Amino acid sequence: MLIVQKYGGTSVGSLERIEEVAKRVAKAKDAGNDVVVVVSAMSGETNKLIGYAKHFSKNPPKREMDLLLSSGERVTSSLLSIALQAKGYNSVALTGRQAGIYTDDLHTTARIDSIDSNKIKEHLDNDEIVVVAGFQGVTSSGEVSTLGRGGSDLSAVAIAGALRADLCEIYTDVDGVYTTDPRIEPKAKKLDIISYDEMLELASLGAKVLQNRSVELAKKLDVTLVTRSSFNDNEGTLITKEENIMEKPLVSGIALDKNQARVTLRGVKDEPGIAAKIFNRLAKENINVDMIIQNVGLDGVTNLGFTVPENELSDAKSVMSKLNASELIEFDPNIVKVSVVGVGMQSHSGVASKAFDTLAKENINIQMISTSEIKVSMVVDEKYGELAVRALHSAYNLDK
Amino acid sequence: MLIVQKYGGTSVGSLERIEEVAKRVAKAKDAGNDVVVVVSAMSGETNKLIGYAKHFSKNPPKREMDLLLSSGERVTSSLLSIALQAKGYNSVALTGRQAGIYTDDLHTTARIDSIDSNKIKEHLDNDEIVVVAGFQGVTSSGEVSTLGRGGSDLSAVAIAGALRADLCEIYTDVDGVYTTDPRIEPKAKKLDIISYDEMLELASLGAKVLQNRSVELAKKLDVTLVTRSSFNDNEGTLITKEENIMEKPLVSGIALDKNQARVTLRGVKDEPGIAAKIFNRLAKENINVDMIIQNVGLDGVTNLGFTVPENELSDAKSVMSKLNASELIEFDPNIVKVSVVGVGMQSHSGVASKAFDTLAKENINIQMISTSEIKVSMVVDEKYGELAVRALHSAYNLDK
Repeated sequence: MLIVQKYGGTSVGSLERIEEVAKRVAKAKDAGNDVVVVVSAMSGETNKLIGYAKHFSKNPPKREMDLLLSSGERVTSSLLSIALQAKGYNSVALTGRQAGIYTDDLHTTARIDSIDSNKIKEHLDNDEIVVVAGFQGVTSSGEVSTLGRGGSDLSAVAIAGALRADLCEIYTDVDGVYTTDPRIEPKAKKLDIISYDEMLELASLGAKVLQNRSVELAKKLDVTLVTRSSFNDNEGTLITKEENIMEKPLVSGIALDKNQARVTLRGVKDEPGIAAKIFNRLAKENINVDMIIQNVGLDGVTNLGFTVPENELSDAKSVMSKLNASELIEFDPNIVKVSVVGVGMQSHSGVASKAFDTLAKENINIQMISTSEIKVSMVVDEKYGELAVRALHSAYNLDK
Repeated sequence: MLIVQKYGGTSVGSLERIEEVAKRVAKAKDAGNDVVVVVSAMSGETNKLIGYAKHFSKNPPKREMDLLLSSGERVTSSLLSIALQAKGYNSVALTGRQAGIYTDDLHTTARIDSIDSNKIKEHLDNDEIVVVAGFQGVTSSGEVSTLGRGGSDLSAVAIAGALRADLCEIYTDVDGVYTTDPRIEPKAKKLDIISYDEMLELASLGAKVLQNRSVELAKKLDVTLVTRSSFNDNEGTLITKEENIMEKPLVSGIALDKNQARVTLRGVKDEPGIAAKIFNRLAKENINVDMIIQNVGLDGVTNLGFTVPENELSDAKSVMSKLNASELIEFDPNIVKVSVVGVGMQSHSGVASKAFDTLAKENINIQMISTSEIKVSMVVDEKYGELAVRALHSAYNLDK
């Protein structure tokens, strides 16, 4: 098999951890696999460097930030290759440039344009373990670029796609994807398998595990992911396309997103163009609107509700105040979004109504509802968030 | 003027120091100069990274070491460029590769093959302050290489040569080149000007200031150097070709090299090939022989003496023991080399005899003598080293 393994910051957070990672990589190689490893910077390193830059400038130039930040992954990749060679394995450390990762020129948030995997292939043909510095690439004009938060995952997925790898293992400090956050519901179970789409919907609970950009890229490139812990030998969670999942569970997990705030416009005139006007302005200010709810109006007026990330609420307020709207506007930061996610609900009815029933039994008022093919999301008062998660987790028998 | 400034590890050893360096660079720019800055890693950084590598391997692979170690200078160059831009200056940070520094492929001790200065020139034409990560280059096959200890000085000198810069300023934490080590002779005076050759001879006292490789390269490329402190505004020491020095002092300085050990073979047969045999074997084992003294023999036998660096004495012993020589071999680590250096002695007699007189007056026995056009070196017992330096410093009126 050709396996791409990616180790995150805590997995390579100390020299001892890098030694452990070297053992794990060696084991995969000993099992007869070709192995490409993608590494993050040692945990804390990137934030330290950002702190250094902020000492000089609130808004440091992005081109220089990329040169600065890309150094952390170079250190880890060199050290891991040194550790592997000390164990007697052939290994080579490659920078993003050397690994052929070409990006656009949006410094600090570059997107991968293409991967020239010839150099990696040459080294693999040479029986070498290839260790790639994650998070970074090079622009067409030869500048160093970085891919933003979660960038090393993206590097790994993109390389796995380019190499048509059999598997892309994402190592972190958690065992995989859970039916819900175990800190909220101790009965949460680790999922053995989940589809890309479910993973995307569960991102808010799995944020520490995988970012949406990486899952989207894996889906696009048809890369089978496994997310697992580098601190034990537990099997992780396989993330693959829906067709590969034999037994589709009705519900895979319950997600809780606390970083949401609700905006409501009461008495909006029920005529074309009002919503467009509001959401265009919000988009222009880079405010990420999540749920949008508008019901059929009564007497020509209606209520329009939407949610934004809590830390963007003050920006949203200032946009709304400039609209000179005659409507009554309410802002409520004290809400959360609870979501029930599962591919199985596409072919089964009753999933949504069971969710509403469950919350009703707990006397939890549902303020907003939004559904997709594989998800039911409900906005409730913040203080009921964790209770709602536990009630739903139990209602769908996820603890069994 | 086009000025290349190089700042060493202590000069950029903290964020506060980098801020100070930014001010100094800005001042040179404000004075109407074009400025290229070459920076070292923050002091301690390179040793930290070497320590990391040694955790995994006593003898880490050199290619990976270069990738590892080159990261330190990338951090400082990015930070300095960020600091300059925060002050409103146009600036760009370049890696060794981006600055067009091409080297051979001797990883960790690469030599600069050529410099493609077009990119630096483009940025200068753009009115930008160019900040280059020192110590590093790129091989013809695209691998990252480093230039060894003192490598950032080499980067600066090579860039100054390629750009035909008017001046190459080497900033450290000392004020310049002194007539002798001020810790030994508090009356030591800073020299205003010194020739390349004198600087090379004084390297053992100036080791912290400039390494021989950089002085040799400066001489070869006809780059005028100034070595000065980044911690004050004192004028430094100008290092230039002899022709540029109007008043040639008889003696410029007194050097003390404590890192020497003496090897003596007594009763060597005075016939061809003996010396060749010994020094070939020492060269093969990479032992650096410094002074070599052999006198005309008496009765067909002679004594052969030479010095080696103290830390290579045990290697030298093992080489000598394998020679199966019939001669009596003595090893003495407790010696030092005291040197009187000055271009003026080429045209003046009596410099050497004054040195011998001076030591005789102090009852210091001279074990070995070696002279060159601009230097008289004497090996004496270690315990007299500092006394000899002070006596010679006074005898040549260097404290006046």
